[in-house]
Amino acid sequence: MISCTHRPRQVLVINVGDELLDGIRENGHLLWLGENLARRGLPITRSVIVRDDAAEIAREISAAWGAYDLIVTTGGIGPTSDDQTRGAVATALGLKLEPVPAAEAALRERFQLIGRKVSAADLGQCYVPAGAESLPNSRGTAPGVFLHRDGKALVMLPGPALELHPMFEEQVVPRLRGVGCACEGEAYVQVRTFGIGAVPLEEIVRPLLGPGMALSFGTHTGVVDARISSTGSGATAEQLCDVARKVRDAVGHDFVCTGHACLASLVVEQLRSLEKTVALAESCTGGLLANAFTDVPGASKVFAGSAVCYANDAKMSLLGIPESLIAQHGAVSAECAAAMATGAIEKFGSDYALSVTGYAGPGGGTEADPVGTVYLGYACPAGVWSRRVVIPGDRFQVKQRAVNTSLDWMRRLLNKYRVEDLIHGA
Amino acid sequence: MISCTHRPRQVLVINVGDELLDGIRENGHLLWLGENLARRGLPITRSVIVRDDAAEIAREISAAWGAYDLIVTTGGIGPTSDDQTRGAVATALGLKLEPVPAAEAALRERFQLIGRKVSAADLGQCYVPAGAESLPNSRGTAPGVFLHRDGKALVMLPGPALELHPMFEEQVVPRLRGVGCACEGEAYVQVRTFGIGAVPLEEIVRPLLGPGMALSFGTHTGVVDARISSTGSGATAEQLCDVARKVRDAVGHDFVCTGHACLASLVVEQLRSLEKTVALAESCTGGLLANAFTDVPGASKVFAGSAVCYANDAKMSLLGIPESLIAQHGAVSAECAAAMATGAIEKFGSDYALSVTGYAGPGGGTEADPVGTVYLGYACPAGVWSRRVVIPGDRFQVKQRAVNTSLDWMRRLLNKYRVEDLIHGA
Repeated sequence: MISCTHRPRQVLVINVGDELLDGIRENGHLLWLGENLARRGLPITRSVIVRDDAAEIAREISAAWGAYDLIVTTGGIGPTSDDQTRGAVATALGLKLEPVPAAEAALRERFQLIGRKVSAADLGQCYVPAGAESLPNSRGTAPGVFLHRDGKALVMLPGPALELHPMFEEQVVPRLRGVGCACEGEAYVQVRTFGIGAVPLEEIVRPLLGPGMALSFGTHTGVVDARISSTGSGATAEQLCDVARKVRDAVGHDFVCTGHACLASLVVEQLRSLEKTVALAESCTGGLLANAFTDVPGASKVFAGSAVCYANDAKMSLLGIPESLIAQHGAVSAECAAAMATGAIEKFGSDYALSVTGYAGPGGGTEADPVGTVYLGYACPAGVWSRRVVIPGDRFQVKQRAVNTSLDWMRRLLNKYRVEDLIHGA
Repeated sequence: MISCTHRPRQVLVINVGDELLDGIRENGHLLWLGENLARRGLPITRSVIVRDDAAEIAREISAAWGAYDLIVTTGGIGPTSDDQTRGAVATALGLKLEPVPAAEAALRERFQLIGRKVSAADLGQCYVPAGAESLPNSRGTAPGVFLHRDGKALVMLPGPALELHPMFEEQVVPRLRGVGCACEGEAYVQVRTFGIGAVPLEEIVRPLLGPGMALSFGTHTGVVDARISSTGSGATAEQLCDVARKVRDAVGHDFVCTGHACLASLVVEQLRSLEKTVALAESCTGGLLANAFTDVPGASKVFAGSAVCYANDAKMSLLGIPESLIAQHGAVSAECAAAMATGAIEKFGSDYALSVTGYAGPGGGTEADPVGTVYLGYACPAGVWSRRVVIPGDRFQVKQRAVNTSLDWMRRLLNKYRVEDLIHGA
């Protein structure tokens, strides 16, 4: 499972593209590669973003070659005139570009299939620096490049994420393992938690670490991850997993999972195994909670829908909330959250329901319930609950944190009743 | 309005933080700074991301100082031991760190207000390299730093976006203008379009350009932006605006706006000026369309809500779609989209309604309507329309593109009827 005991590597990622520097496109590649390289024991040492300019790209490669064990470039390997990476790398390394007949045959076949003519510019994509391999692109036309030379590896990946991700997994990782650069299994064990801060989590995990183990943390909107890794030839895979098990037992219900699964996909999985469905009633999250469920492929098996009721009239007409309840307690109240959840169960005919109502800001709020106050409701065959949380931050942060908090609450309640069922059954 | 006629500047952005390289946090700063620097005539030349390591930061600063007109760092200026930027920059430039009494007074006052004790580490944030200014942080404790030396500027900004954005706008931009680094107004005119590709748009814009004007493009999920800027001391502000007006007239209904407003905020604005409301009925977008509306502050004035009906039963019970309609035409059909839109108007009591139903994938789809097929519905007092679009890409891309396409469609229909009203009235 885990077998990453090699010495630390120096890894450089170069993202090429004017749009990344002009504030036009988010550099999602760095996030994705950061996680997926670290998992293979190759955390990124440094990253550079440059324009679609052959001289700039060549300068970065020249300066970096020799100092890094692995260089990964993204973008600039397509057929258009602003695709400069392939030629710039060859120039920087003093290598000639050579055609790869198999890549050309694959490209001609693909173009014939979609009825497009092959131009000279298209064929330029089938060249690689002398001694490099051309990497098949299962989702697009631009092949990647893998070069291993003087004990160093250089990888060129295409710009579109849809093409980059499968090429990295299918073509690059096996080759990096083949040359002993990436480790065979996972490089660390990640324990994902919710509801415990990074500081108390560290107080739990630190004393459990054995010799030769390192610890790092990641936090994202309430989720706190502890990553336990081996330093050099320190700890074995089994020892790391053993620590993860102890952390899981120590954090109790705050334990979410080991690995990288998101809260929504875990709740969908729980519901699938129970063969139950869920419906939502949303006010301040405004559809973001429904979107978290529907981002999970196959969610339609368990997700009935969401009544996004921003206006009070909509809460009454769609969810059947009595006008008197809103008049007496207000639309942002524990009572309204509970009524929204039971209303969702009735209207959607689901087994469970989750509801959210609150003040996301910048307007709204009262002295007792300022901006950031959110009431959650949960209805299931056993009854109805509601709870109040106060979330700091702007509109986007309040929405996102309310989504994660409600998903985590549902995960806990589903787990809790399952655990108790087991105890009663024993 | 536009007065950016200075020579091109060399701009380097250095983002500091392990979490940016380990795949834990998206580097949103680069996107934000990229846009907001370019608007001031300071497009980013190159960007580097380094770990929380004083030696690494100092190495980048040493290598870059002198070669760039402006260096901006983000992160690493807080009070904890992994905040290394302040000291590393001083070391690299051979400057002593000196305390700033006004910054210390502000920090002590802030801490007293929130009842927290001031530690020596907290006070470390009030030091700047000799000759630099300390920049007040209106949203947090870590002050920024502004250094102008030998005709070059260096700016240190805090890591949290909530603190970085106002500090950049309120403290940094005026100082960059003061030293003649940033231009006084906007550096370019941006024409935002939807429905026209970048290639045909370029064919329209290119012949309209005058001498000393440059053109670049940005595309994001159907939105295509043309940015018209002045090269060096080429064109005047009025000349750029004049070209933008001609582009607007030439692209017709595909013209969205000049500037940076998102589609949802424009539709919200249109509805506010009409004093009308909208409701949604969503299937495959699964709440993402509602979320686009509710991301706009003040949307509650015009946004009634959304019936996210993933299950067919929900379409019947919440929106009153007849079972026979779904049986005859299917839930993914022009007929169902139209019925969803009229159902939303009825249930929410809104003036307008927008609906989306389709196959987002990876599962689903038929031979006639493969994955990516989406039907949109639109209902208003004048009648009901539906249209079919086919969107390439994965689940996330289909959802996002369906959201933008439906928002753009509503924008057009609202505009169209207003334009015609004017003609009839004339």
